Amino acid sequence: MSEIKFRSDVTVELVKHSASDEDVVWAARVSTAGERSKESVGPVSESKGLINFLMRERHGTPFEHSVFTFYVKAPIFVWREHMRHRVASYNEESGRYRVLDPEFYVPDQKRKLVQVGKAGAYNFEDGTKEQFDVTDKAFRESCEAAYIQYESMLAAGVAREVARGVLPVTIYSTAYVTMNARALMNFLSLRKKDEDSLFPSYPQREIEMVAEKYEEHFAQVMPITHEAFVANKRVSP
Amino acid sequence: MSEIKFRSDVTVELVKHSASDEDVVWAARVSTAGERSKESVGPVSESKGLINFLMRERHGTPFEHSVFTFYVKAPIFVWREHMRHRVASYNEESGRYRVLDPEFYVPDQKRKLVQVGKAGAYNFEDGTKEQFDVTDKAFRESCEAAYIQYESMLAAGVAREVARGVLPVTIYSTAYVTMNARALMNFLSLRKKDEDSLFPSYPQREIEMVAEKYEEHFAQVMPITHEAFVANKRVSP
Amino acid sequence: MSEIKFRSDVTVELVKHSASDEDVVWAARVSTAGERSKESVGPVSESKGLINFLMRERHGTPFEHSVFTFYVKAPIFVWREHMRHRVASYNEESGRYRVLDPEFYVPDQKRKLVQVGKAGAYNFEDGTKEQFDVTDKAFRESCEAAYIQYESMLAAGVAREVARGVLPVTIYSTAYVTMNARALMNFLSLRKKDEDSLFPSYPQREIEMVAEKYEEHFAQVMPITHEAFVANKRVSP
Amino acid sequence: MSEIKFRSDVTVELVKHSASDEDVVWAARVSTAGERSKESVGPVSESKGLINFLMRERHGTPFEHSVFTFYVKAPIFVWREHMRHRVASYNEESGRYRVLDPEFYVPDQKRKLVQVGKAGAYNFEDGTKEQFDVTDKAFRESCEAAYIQYESMLAAGVAREVARGVLPVTIYSTAYVTMNARALMNFLSLRKKDEDSLFPSYPQREIEMVAEKYEEHFAQVMPITHEAFVANKRVSP
Repeated sequence: MSEIKFRSDVTVELVKHSASDEDVVWAARVSTAGERSKESVGPVSESKGLINFLMRERHGTPFEHSVFTFYVKAPIFVWREHMRHRVASYNEESGRYRVLDPEFYVPDQKRKLVQVGKAGAYNFEDGTKEQFDVTDKAFRESCEAAYIQYESMLAAGVAREVARGVLPVTIYSTAYVTMNARALMNFLSLRKKDEDSLFPSYPQREIEMVAEKYEEHFAQVMPITHEAFVANKRVSP
Repeated sequence: MSEIKFRSDVTVELVKHSASDEDVVWAARVSTAGERSKESVGPVSESKGLINFLMRERHGTPFEHSVFTFYVKAPIFVWREHMRHRVASYNEESGRYRVLDPEFYVPDQKRKLVQVGKAGAYNFEDGTKEQFDVTDKAFRESCEAAYIQYESMLAAGVAREVARGVLPVTIYSTAYVTMNARALMNFLSLRKKDEDSLFPSYPQREIEMVAEKYEEHFAQVMPITHEAFVANKRVSP
Repeated sequence: MSEIKFRSDVTVELVKHSASDEDVVWAARVSTAGERSKESVGPVSESKGLINFLMRERHGTPFEHSVFTFYVKAPIFVWREHMRHRVASYNEESGRYRVLDPEFYVPDQKRKLVQVGKAGAYNFEDGTKEQFDVTDKAFRESCEAAYIQYESMLAAGVAREVARGVLPVTIYSTAYVTMNARALMNFLSLRKKDEDSLFPSYPQREIEMVAEKYEEHFAQVMPITHEAFVANKRVSP
Repeated sequence: MSEIKFRSDVTVELVKHSASDEDVVWAARVSTAGERSKESVGPVSESKGLINFLMRERHGTPFEHSVFTFYVKAPIFVWREHMRHRVASYNEESGRYRVLDPEFYVPDQKRKLVQVGKAGAYNFEDGTKEQFDVTDKAFRESCEAAYIQYESMLAAGVAREVARGVLPVTIYSTAYVTMNARALMNFLSLRKKDEDSLFPSYPQREIEMVAEKYEEHFAQVMPITHEAFVANKRVSP
């Protein structure tokens, strides 16, 4: 029998990008300059003001020419939320084409387990030691039992696409995700909670972990744009 | 403990639509007539030729003004494929907002369990009695065990969004799906196998069961369009 | 020679719709109810609160199942802006397939002709009598001269798609436009100026005239949704 | 008065790209490999077969992670068609923010002026010397007259957004266009005529000129993908 692995993280690799603050300025300046040239871009100091203006006035299209491709590993329940973002491109590993690896997400002790407040605006608080233990045990037992059943069906010659039905939504899956900077900011505004957001959101912690990693890459590749996004209270343009 | 239910079907209800063959003709005739009037539509007999022409020449936009809203119940592994169709609107029940019902899909004896051929073009054959029994038992045991773990976490006060992690992808979920006729034909061309398709597809049987029900509604609401789709070898325009 | 007509309006006909406040409630309740039934919708009085909640929290998807189809007549310079809205379906009359009618938009005396302020936040003020006269004369002479050239090329046997090159962007064109209520609110937030908007916009007056007519239909078909849109400062969800 | 310029070409600059045949292979292999690594890509010789398979079987998503940004100059009547392609990002120069340059497209002597055949499947033949002369004269006179009227309104203090109404659709405009390789192949299949296409198209010559230049860049950046596109009769996946 395969060895079952448990983890409590998600991973995000920036595979490639075609993104920069300068590209935002190019794209915006075409409105007024009509000509494309280094001169039309102007100094970075002016770019800052222009990018902030675009963000504040919600002129979103200049951000669409900057594109990121990520390679992401996350549990299926995260992918289920992620793929509701339709302005994005996805290629995910297939449970029809391959045997899925026995790797499962399990909440660690930092994961707040108790939900308070009302639908649409939940807050989360630390669970007790007992709650953590119940959860940890339930995940480990369930995942292991399910994977054994999965393998037994495969061993009997049952098709992978059928056998996978018993696997829990906490199993990991991997995918390429391509999003432009505008779609990415929309993702961040919805999937990352922030005190300073004009429109607060209440994402599930695990997709927020993906969003946090996306935001690090975004801030590094497009620092002026990211700063303007934060300064404008994380309203996606 | 809640009673666990097993089923082997999917359900599709046509909630509402704003679709008709006549609307396709209206939309197409605006290209040439410029004026909207009953006269510009002309007799149904001519419509047939026009709709067939649009389909054959792959003029897809006139089909976009006809819109269907379905209410669908299917296992999560079907939804995972369904939601890759981005030109569609979805509202699905939420495992964060509510306790999911203990209702699970299990393959019945008609479900071909054995996959032959190579990746991308699998064909399926009947399983043996033993294969069916292994599968049936694995599904029933797994789903029941997982749901018991789910309920134990809920009973301990663990948040629904955490506890659901152990539930298998064969659990049912429900959603509203709105698609226009063009997107629907694209769905049908990819998710329903047909000997006469110009571009054959190899859908998983369970999403094909949804596609079959979509196609029945489509054929009833837009019979001329459906006929042209079939006559043109199910190439979505 | 054809008679040249001038107008100063746009027209919008609501051809059909599949839209209602109740549909928004259905779609939203699936998250929590999981079952579709009349009971799950509840009384209209509760709907109001729910729709307002969705709007405020920017839960946009429940508004996507309500769809409008309009038949619109507007000058080409309006269509150029309109078609930048990508979440919409269009069928427009074709200058390749038919001879375009000699009907042109000309600003009337109410149209504010003078632009003040800076790029991205223009305001408009009344023009002088002289400015109106210059404009009126320029439009009438230009359109007439261009259409005569158009007809002379057609008379010489030149293809319509070539000859139309000389026609000005103020010539009218007609199209079917299908948009769901979410896309429509986005359109309204960008294309209709309103003192009470959280994010003010500065649309060109002529596309605003289209937006005003869209909004009338929207308010009539989905009064509770429209009220919530206004109450939430016209931020599209 | 400004000097009026006439041209008979379109220009396309490849501003940047994030595209390669190898990226297609990466994205496709995630289905079967689940892991991202150089090893999972394999030798280029195998890539050829895989890319051809994806194209033939119409697995389109692996082509979406390769993205091109072009800077294009073309007449407005070309942009009108171009912007009907909704899976793309655009930033175009604005007739509201700037005075448009007096640069106009005029058909040259190679442009076939006479249309034969029926709607939806026009073919074009050479015009006579007289037809060319009529067209050339009509374009030059119309454009010059319209631009003079435009400038007279601007001189009188009339807003740019109003004054531009008289300008003909043959005036040039510039824009940034970002499209992924899948959307680009769709564009090419519809906007470039080719004897070998499975689904023939009948584009207007001037947008075809843009498509030809797009295709050159595409073939250079993604030679294996382009070859597979051609080998599969230009059916966009």
